[in-house]
Order: sequence, then C-alpha cells, then structure tokens
Amino acid sequence: MKNSRGFASDNNSGIHPDILAAIEKANAGHVIAYGDDLYTENAKKIIRQHFGECDVFFVLTGTGANVMGLSALTSPFHSVICAESAHIYVDECGAPERFCGCKLLPVETKDGKLTPVSVAGHIHGFGFEHHSQPKIISISQSSELGTVYTPEEIRRLADYAHDYNMFLHMDGARLSNAVVSVGTDFKSVTKDAGVDILSFGGTKNGMLFAESVIFFRKGLSDNFKYIRKQSMQLASKMRFISVQFEAYLSNDLWKRNAAHANRMAQMLSDEVSKINGITITQRTESNAVFAILPEESVTRLQQECFFYVWDEKKSEVRWMTSFDTTEEDIMKFISLLKKNV
Amino acid sequence: MKNSRGFASDNNSGIHPDILAAIEKANAGHVIAYGDDLYTENAKKIIRQHFGECDVFFVLTGTGANVMGLSALTSPFHSVICAESAHIYVDECGAPERFCGCKLLPVETKDGKLTPVSVAGHIHGFGFEHHSQPKIISISQSSELGTVYTPEEIRRLADYAHDYNMFLHMDGARLSNAVVSVGTDFKSVTKDAGVDILSFGGTKNGMLFAESVIFFRKGLSDNFKYIRKQSMQLASKMRFISVQFEAYLSNDLWKRNAAHANRMAQMLSDEVSKINGITITQRTESNAVFAILPEESVTRLQQECFFYVWDEKKSEVRWMTSFDTTEEDIMKFISLLKKNV
Amino acid sequence: MKNSRGFASDNNSGIHPDILAAIEKANAGHVIAYGDDLYTENAKKIIRQHFGECDVFFVLTGTGANVMGLSALTSPFHSVICAESAHIYVDECGAPERFCGCKLLPVETKDGKLTPVSVAGHIHGFGFEHHSQPKIISISQSSELGTVYTPEEIRRLADYAHDYNMFLHMDGARLSNAVVSVGTDFKSVTKDAGVDILSFGGTKNGMLFAESVIFFRKGLSDNFKYIRKQSMQLASKMRFISVQFEAYLSNDLWKRNAAHANRMAQMLSDEVSKINGITITQRTESNAVFAILPEESVTRLQQECFFYVWDEKKSEVRWMTSFDTTEEDIMKFISLLKKNV
Amino acid sequence: MKNSRGFASDNNSGIHPDILAAIEKANAGHVIAYGDDLYTENAKKIIRQHFGECDVFFVLTGTGANVMGLSALTSPFHSVICAESAHIYVDECGAPERFCGCKLLPVETKDGKLTPVSVAGHIHGFGFEHHSQPKIISISQSSELGTVYTPEEIRRLADYAHDYNMFLHMDGARLSNAVVSVGTDFKSVTKDAGVDILSFGGTKNGMLFAESVIFFRKGLSDNFKYIRKQSMQLASKMRFISVQFEAYLSNDLWKRNAAHANRMAQMLSDEVSKINGITITQRTESNAVFAILPEESVTRLQQECFFYVWDEKKSEVRWMTSFDTTEEDIMKFISLLKKNV
Repeated sequence: MKNSRGFASDNNSGIHPDILAAIEKANAGHVIAYGDDLYTENAKKIIRQHFGECDVFFVLTGTGANVMGLSALTSPFHSVICAESAHIYVDECGAPERFCGCKLLPVETKDGKLTPVSVAGHIHGFGFEHHSQPKIISISQSSELGTVYTPEEIRRLADYAHDYNMFLHMDGARLSNAVVSVGTDFKSVTKDAGVDILSFGGTKNGMLFAESVIFFRKGLSDNFKYIRKQSMQLASKMRFISVQFEAYLSNDLWKRNAAHANRMAQMLSDEVSKINGITITQRTESNAVFAILPEESVTRLQQECFFYVWDEKKSEVRWMTSFDTTEEDIMKFISLLKKNV
Repeated sequence: MKNSRGFASDNNSGIHPDILAAIEKANAGHVIAYGDDLYTENAKKIIRQHFGECDVFFVLTGTGANVMGLSALTSPFHSVICAESAHIYVDECGAPERFCGCKLLPVETKDGKLTPVSVAGHIHGFGFEHHSQPKIISISQSSELGTVYTPEEIRRLADYAHDYNMFLHMDGARLSNAVVSVGTDFKSVTKDAGVDILSFGGTKNGMLFAESVIFFRKGLSDNFKYIRKQSMQLASKMRFISVQFEAYLSNDLWKRNAAHANRMAQMLSDEVSKINGITITQRTESNAVFAILPEESVTRLQQECFFYVWDEKKSEVRWMTSFDTTEEDIMKFISLLKKNV
Repeated sequence: MKNSRGFASDNNSGIHPDILAAIEKANAGHVIAYGDDLYTENAKKIIRQHFGECDVFFVLTGTGANVMGLSALTSPFHSVICAESAHIYVDECGAPERFCGCKLLPVETKDGKLTPVSVAGHIHGFGFEHHSQPKIISISQSSELGTVYTPEEIRRLADYAHDYNMFLHMDGARLSNAVVSVGTDFKSVTKDAGVDILSFGGTKNGMLFAESVIFFRKGLSDNFKYIRKQSMQLASKMRFISVQFEAYLSNDLWKRNAAHANRMAQMLSDEVSKINGITITQRTESNAVFAILPEESVTRLQQECFFYVWDEKKSEVRWMTSFDTTEEDIMKFISLLKKNV
Repeated sequence: MKNSRGFASDNNSGIHPDILAAIEKANAGHVIAYGDDLYTENAKKIIRQHFGECDVFFVLTGTGANVMGLSALTSPFHSVICAESAHIYVDECGAPERFCGCKLLPVETKDGKLTPVSVAGHIHGFGFEHHSQPKIISISQSSELGTVYTPEEIRRLADYAHDYNMFLHMDGARLSNAVVSVGTDFKSVTKDAGVDILSFGGTKNGMLFAESVIFFRKGLSDNFKYIRKQSMQLASKMRFISVQFEAYLSNDLWKRNAAHANRMAQMLSDEVSKINGITITQRTESNAVFAILPEESVTRLQQECFFYVWDEKKSEVRWMTSFDTTEEDIMKFISLLKKNV
C-alpha cells in the first residue's frame, strides 16, 4: 500500500526505524513474560536517568496510562479537575468515570492550560459527604491545544494541589514535544516541578504501542501492579515495549523526533499566517497548529488531505505535525491551502 | 542479551519472523489511526474467510479480549459459568468482576473442560431477583490444562446454553493449537459449533501483541466499539495489529506454528513418560504437558530451566512448548530431568 | 427532645401523621417480603391511577431512585446531560458516575432549568467511539432552584431528546410541589409530557423513607428488579413503603402537603421582599426561597435558626418550607431577619 | 388485611410495638437531616455500651450494610472468602462484585461455618499480580444454616485472617439470635473475638428498616461516610433509624426478641423430630430449622403455609421463626406437618 503523509494526527504516523530495529534486536529466544526481564529493568533505569528516582510501569495505550494512573490515586468518591479540552474529559469515551468511578470536573480555558485561579471554583466541599471530594488536578503537557506549560506554571499548580492534599497528574502523551519547546529536560517539567504522577507516552512520537505510568512520590505505586493487570494492560511480551523506551531515550531520539515535529509545526504556522483568510488561533508551541478558515474551504481541503475539525461552530481546525513530516509535505499543503481558501 | 528457550510459557517466546516482516512492510507513511484503514479491512476479510461471517475487533491483550467480550454480552446482574481452572477465573486478577460487575461461578473439572452436566448445578434462579442471572458459559479452547474440545462437545454446550437463553463464550488464546489438534478448521470449532463470541489470540503463537474479539451472532457487537474504547484497548496504530493477523492467517503460518508446538509437546510428553518418578497428569492434546514429580526435583530443575508449578499441593508442574521450541531443546530438558528426578 | 422547625431543608421535617398511621395499620402479621404482597400491589394501582399506565418500583432513597433509574437506561459509555445545579451532579457524591459508569455533562443555567437550546452544546459525537454517547437529558421538577417546568417546556425537552434517540429523565423528589404549582396533575407533567422515567419522591413531603422509580415506556423496566436488588435498595419489609404511597395519594394528602409548603414559601418570599438589604434571586414557584443578604447577617441568623448558604461567593442562601411549616414560624423568622439584616 | 404468621422468613414479620413507639416519639419538629442529630448521637453511644469503642454508621438494608462494609476494606483487586451458602455469595444478586469490583471465593461447608482449615485453600498468591489478592474472610453469625460460631471459633478465624494481613468481616443480620444462643453479649462475639467490621442488623428481629455498619479498628472508617453516600444508603431522616436502634438495645428488647425466636425454633425442631419421615439436617442453634421431607409433602404444605425450599435436589426446606411466632403457630404447623408427611 502507498500511504501518503498528512496533518490529521501524529497517531497516523508509523514506527521510527530505530524503534523497529530495537524490537528486532530483542527478538531472540525466550524471556520471562510480563516484565520480569532484563530489557524492562534496563528501560526503567534509563527512564530514571532522565526523570530522577521514580517508579515506572509500562502499558499499551495512552488512555490506559491516564485512566490507570488516575485510578491509582483516587477512590470512587473523589473528583478530578481538568481542562474541558483534556483528553481524559473528551476523548476517552468516559473510561475515567467507568474505571475510577470518579467525577471529572471540567474547567473552561482559552489555551487548554489550567491555573490555580481557574481551578479554584472546584476546590471546595472537603469533608462534606454529599460532594465528590477533589483529589487530582490533571494537566496535559503539551496541552491538547498545542500550548506548553513552563516549569514555573506547573510548580504553581503542584503547590496549589498539595496545599489541599491533592495530587498533580500530567498527561504526557506529547511530553517530549513540550520538553523541547521549553528547552529543558524531562525532570524539570515533571518531578522537579512537583508532578506526582505522569502518563509518559511514546506512541505519538515514533513508537509502536508504548506508554508508561511514572510515579514520582514514594508509596503511591504500591498496588499499581494489580491495577495494571486488572485494567487488562499488562503485556505478556513486555520486553518489546521496554526496548522501545530504551531506544527512544538513547541517542536523543526522543529529542530529535520532537524537535523536528515542533519545527515543522512552526514552519506550517509561519506559512499559514501569510495566507489571507486563515487565522491562527493558538500559539504554536509544540507540534500542533490551530486555525480558523472558511467552512467550504475545509470540506474541499479534507478531500485532498484529511484533517480534523476541532470546533465546528467556529470552523476551527487542527493540524498536527509528526516526526516524519517533511518540509516538502508542508509546502505542498500550503499550496493546497492557497488554492482552496 | 542471550536468551535461551525454556518451557515456562508460550508467552515467553518472541515474534515469528513472518509477523515482524509484516509489521515492517506496513511501516510506510501515514494511515488513519484507530482502525479505519485498509490494512484492518483486509485483516477482517481474511478472518471472515477462516471463520465465516462475523464481526471482528482487534485488541491488545488476551485478558482484554476476554473481559471486553464478556462485558459485551452481560449486564452486571448476570453470572458467567466457567471451569475453576479458567484463565478468566484464576489469572486475570478479578478483571472480569471489576469490569463487567458480574459474578463468576467456578465449576470443578478433572481436565479443564466443561460439560452440560457439570455446569448444570449453576443453571437455576432465573427470574429470581436475589440471584445473579446465569448468562454465559465460558470455555477455553484449548483448555488451561492442555486438553481440547471436539466440535461435538462444543455444540452440546452451545445448545445447552442457548436452551437457557445464554451465550457460549470461547477463550481462544490457544485456539490454533486446538484446531490443529482436532484436525479441523477454525470455523468448525467456533461458528459452526455454536460459539457466540470468541477471544481469538495470536500472542501465544508468534504474534507481538495481537488479540481479537469475534462475534458470530448478528447484533451482539453493535456497541462493542464503545466498550473497546472505554476499556482502554483501542490501539491508535491499529494497522500494526491488523497486519499481524493477516500474516498469521496467510501461508498457513498459524497452522505451522501450532502444529509444531503441539508436536513438540507430544515429543516431550512421550519422552517424559519414559522417566521413572514422573507422572503425566493430563492428556497431551495441544502444547502443554502436565506432570507430577518430586518437590525437591522441581526446585533443582527450576534453577536450571525455569517453569511454573501448577499445583503446589500435588507437586504438579506445567511445561509449555512454543512455535520456536526445537527438538534439541526437548532432548536437553529430558537429560536435565533424568539427572534430577 | 424538643425540636423546633426551621427553613434548612424539607428533609429535616418528620413524618406526616397520616403516613405514620398507615404504617401502623399495616403492622399486622406476616407478609411476603420484598414486595410480593397485596399492599404493594395496591400502592402500584393507585400510582397508575395518578400517572397512567406505568411500571413502578419502590425504593428507599432519592439518590437511589435517581442513580438506579439512570442506570436502567444507560450503558457505561453513555452520557447524561443535566443542569450544573442538578442533585445528580452536585449532591450525590458521584454516585451516578460510580454506579452507572457514565459521564455527567453539566449545563449552566440561570434558574436550574434546561431547554433544548441550552443542552444543544452537548448533543454531538454520535457514533464516534472516542466520545461518551449522549443518552439521557435529566431534569428536576421542581428544580433545585425552586423553579418549575410547565408541561409544554417538558414536552419540548422530551421531543428533543427523542429526536436523538435519547431519554428524558425527571428527578421528582419534589414533584408534588411542582404539580401544585402548575395547577395540574401528575400525569400532565410526566407521562403526557413525554417523560420516560421518573424518580417520584415522598420523603421531602411527609413520608418516612419512601421513593419510587416509575417507567412510562414499555420494555424499559424489564431488568430493573435486578438493578434494584444489586443496588442494595430492595427493602425486605416493602409493605411499609407501599402503604406510605397509598396514604400519600389518597385523600389528596400529597396535594394538601405540597400546597401548604408552597403557600408558606410564597408568604416567606412576600415578606422577605419587603425587607431592605435582601434580594430574592429566583422566582418562588414551589417550596424554596433563594435570597442574597449580607454575609455577616447570614452568620448571625444561622446561629439562631440554621439554614444553608447556596452560593458562598454571592452570599446567596436557600430557605425551604415544608408540609409542617406554620405561619407563625414564618413571622418569627421574618422578625429575626429584620433584626439581623 | 388479615395477615397470618408463617415460617417462611423473619423478614416477613412486622415491626415490634416498642420500635414503632420509638419512631412515633421521635416524630416531632425538625431535626438536621443525614445523621447530624442528637438521636443518632445517642444511638451510637448505646451501641458503644454494648460493643465497646467503635465507629457506627446507620444504613437501610442488610445487603447494603454488607456491600458497603466490604467496599470500605477492599480495593477491586482483592478477594473475599466466604461460605458458599453466604448471603453475600448467593442472595445479593452479585452486588458485592458490582460495587466492590472484588472476586468472591466460595468455600464448601457442611454447616455454613468457616474454619481456618476450610479457607486455607484460598489463601495464596499474595504479591502475584495475576491473582486477586485475598483480603477479607467473611462469616455470618448466626450462619445462613442457623448454626452459631462460639467466640473461640471466631477468634481463631480472626487470628488466621490477621496473620495474613486480612480482615474478618461478620454479617450480623441475625447477630442477636447468635448472642442469645451462645449465652454471651455482643462484645464477646465481635470486638473481643477479633472481628474487624460488622453488619449489625435489626430488620430481621423487629425493626422496620434499620441496619448498621460497625468498625472495631481505628482508621478503617475514615472514608466510610463518602462510601455510604455514594452507595445511595445515606437516609435523610436518619433519626428514625437511630431511635430504632436505641429502643432495640434498651430494656433488653433485642434479647427478648431473639431469645423468643430461638426458643420457638427449638420447640419447632423438637416437635418436628418426633415426626416420622422428616429429618432435621442442621443443629437448631438460632431461629432456623432445616429439614428434609418428601417432595410431594413440601408442595402440599406450601399451599397452606408458604415456606422456602433450601435445596431442591435434597428436598431440604428452611423454616424460620421470628420475634412474633407463638407456640400456637408452631403447634398448628406441626399438625399440618403430621397431616401432610
């Protein structure tokens, strides 16, 4: 099959060659299933080199990483506060509610990012048995709107959460793009900024199926192995997840892939902003570009190169770049835009 | 790393080269995520060639396939009848209870197989609101004790279930081994034998992570896409599951792998039965050998070549063969046994 | 103990003498437990006289009635749309999410009432597996803000819901007050207005513990007896719930109690509106009065006669009247208000 | 209606006059809803006088008390070990599985009672993530077969449970009958015998709807108020549950009722054992008599005086006595038996 590249989603991309090579290399002989193997031990070590001391669990899907992580830190009578654009709120078919039993409380935002001020309206009713007890503030880094939190912004949310005996959860499905964007390292925007638990994803940046849940506080993960198994996310041939993470965090693969995708998004954003009739609606800080363009243009364009409408009412669309996006892809798409807007 | 092969589990094996090649071949360009792609369409077509008309959903883990399948056919006030040795009863950490909310009712068996007579004790209380309502009979083909149901045995259970307006569920994590064992095809032991829903697994017979849920009755799968998503088992890069199934069902790969593993089990069983002090405890009908040997021998042997004790009280162990087991592996293990029993 | 009456909640009131008399009268000999008795049969008949043909189930708590009703009409991948002030959203500690597994989607309102226009923002994503599927619009009659839907308003919501293959659920914890308020009968604001399922409560209007779930559409309640039992709400001595409903719906007790409470609320509202420094914030259409008064007055008043602050930010309070509120109670409270505002 | 008394169930009886009088007496004025009232405070004090220091929560149904209690001490990956005749296993429509998410593990017994030896087969797999982790041993006192544990038998189970870091749960729906039977007090068979959590029921011994969950270990109940609310079992007019318990534990009402019911069962048992063709199958230690009699006799008898068949295969029936059973009731039933067996 001949598959062309587009801007619909970084999930549509394939596997980076280095990741596939790592899988092939690990494909020899028998290894104890379910993670009790040396590949997995190594991968955890490398993650600790990047994130500092932490407990690491490998899982299969991003929704799984989020839901299991939230489940580990909550009881069903708790609530989770998140942006109304959060993946856990709008894109997981209610899996957090079903699996955790918790209430999710949405916060309206302009840019997909929470602040202590914007979450404050949900922080009340502690000790009142009629009220779901607030327990987690969940943020996405980078956010679903392509924006990025600075370490200071995260620290403020973490301090705020901890003041109320709550946890800060980070959905890091696109963490690498965010780290590259703020020009720092993994530890600075997670452990050092006060994050308690992280979904650290690889699938959107060149891995096959490989996600992880990382706990930064002692004691939080004691029962997580049961939660992972009971959530149907314990992979038997775990070594093949582990070696993906190993390859990802070696030779700066994560950084090269993310930096490239971010650069492509910036290029796309720059070029788009020169076109009359299209308005960029969010700062392009990672690998996403949000723009408003005429509805009829959208329909025509989608037929040539599919992408998603983000907000039908505003005719706002989302374009994602990926580790394998090329400058040529962008210039071709820009021509298409120029012809159709 | 140098990984030697053993007899602990078919989950410990790696990826068959043809499967890996299929993944590599599909790794080109962008493809719509979450299964709306041509690879997935093709894979479903091939599955229908083998199983007859059916609805197919690809998922990531065997526990996931079982739990989601049971969930699709039950409400929380239902019960599921299974062998007390069933994977869903003893090896899924209670995931079926948590996710479906159902009661699982165990049936004592000698050989891991159910019959209408043995399940009858649980078939009562219909319409009585204090009683979990029986809804599913779940069997494993091949069973967790390595035995295999004939098509007639399955048909009798299916008829029995349908008489009570119940469903027959089959855990087919090792279905290929069973099909080879009875010398028939997939359709004869599933759709044609009255099975309503099947977990059709590939991971234990050469795939990477690839399982599926197959519905044989119209209308049962209408909401399954939501259940799969809410169960966190919707893979974004679905094409890489689909092509594994395509490769598996092409060129008789499934049959070659399963036949080989079964043959190796038979060889192991034959050789073991010649050794004094070891008793084979189950018929060797697929790729498992069950045997009782002295406790102190077990401990010594496990240090040289790890495998699992199945029943500590009886000192009964389980040895699994796999698609990559060699005759040399077996003869080496036989020597080891001879030295240590 | 000497318990004075206040305006904190209609839940704080006791049992109407006619209700208690009915319990006493039924307290003779043995009766088959769990509802298979003549008292229960009679009570259901009387309910059908008031509501038209319907399926009736008696339960113990209002939260129970709501949660079980929602559960009967949903799968966990569904969503329920409600006012952000709805009891199911803010006062049930997340029980709907835990028990149904569903997502609850809040709608901002001025007066606690939904309209087709205000819910429209949540009506999308049908067939998209990443999105919780909208299945129920839930309204409270009378609303948590003391306002009341006309039959026409309910009909419009019902039609809207049915257009999308959704259901209209009504939380009728204070249905009697609403029926009196619109000057009609039970059937006109429920079955005839298109309501599919109703929580019909009695506890807030003179009963002890007595609530019910009423289904107006054939086929919806087929499995409800199992849901009620599994939800731990099947009362063994059911006759004592049933006779409360019988007494409630006989001799216009429901109407006399509700009319009285409404009249008391109107009187309170009228008197309050004459006091400088207090602003009535909602139309007084049932047995609730909402008002803004100075924060320091609230604190002083609560010490003499406790009531709840509804919205701390606005210093808005809620005063509830009850079937046993007297004119003297109100005039005493008005004096207190005059002294303290 | 004229309701005659029978032997079908102690749930079929009505309300003891002292209990009803207590409800009437508390029916004055307003009281803060949901348990923050003096009646409830008093009732808890009296319970502590009988049981020693403990945390007490009032609820509405026996199934509710059991399920919420189990839920308080478990996570969904835990298992609960109980007799295969336990109410939680066979009579709650799977509510424990649905609400707790746990696996229930049945133990075969002759007399409805567990011992350390009989539960031992389920005590394994600690730390193994594929296995539901054993967390609770649950016993019924008196048992569903009418037998009673001595304090020593309970202590042995408690010690055994605690050795494995597990809890001992007691379903005390008929605790009063058991206490009278062993000739001791509440504390001796619960707190002093090592019970961690108790469902202490009143409905079967003269109350209306009144059950409670009692925690004997510090710290276990910290979140129980949220669990009770989320389980839909928080009664608004709590005072009317509380005063039932107050009346029950005053003037030895609990003891008089239970002693009477037990005596009636003994009398029934004694008389029955004189009849040819009926075999008593369990020791009559509380208020239940189990007997085998010819199937055709059962059918004839049920038409005159309904009771339940316990085990259809054996034609074994259960007869329950109650606080209001009279000697005349028994002698009439004995005549009936004599005529029909």
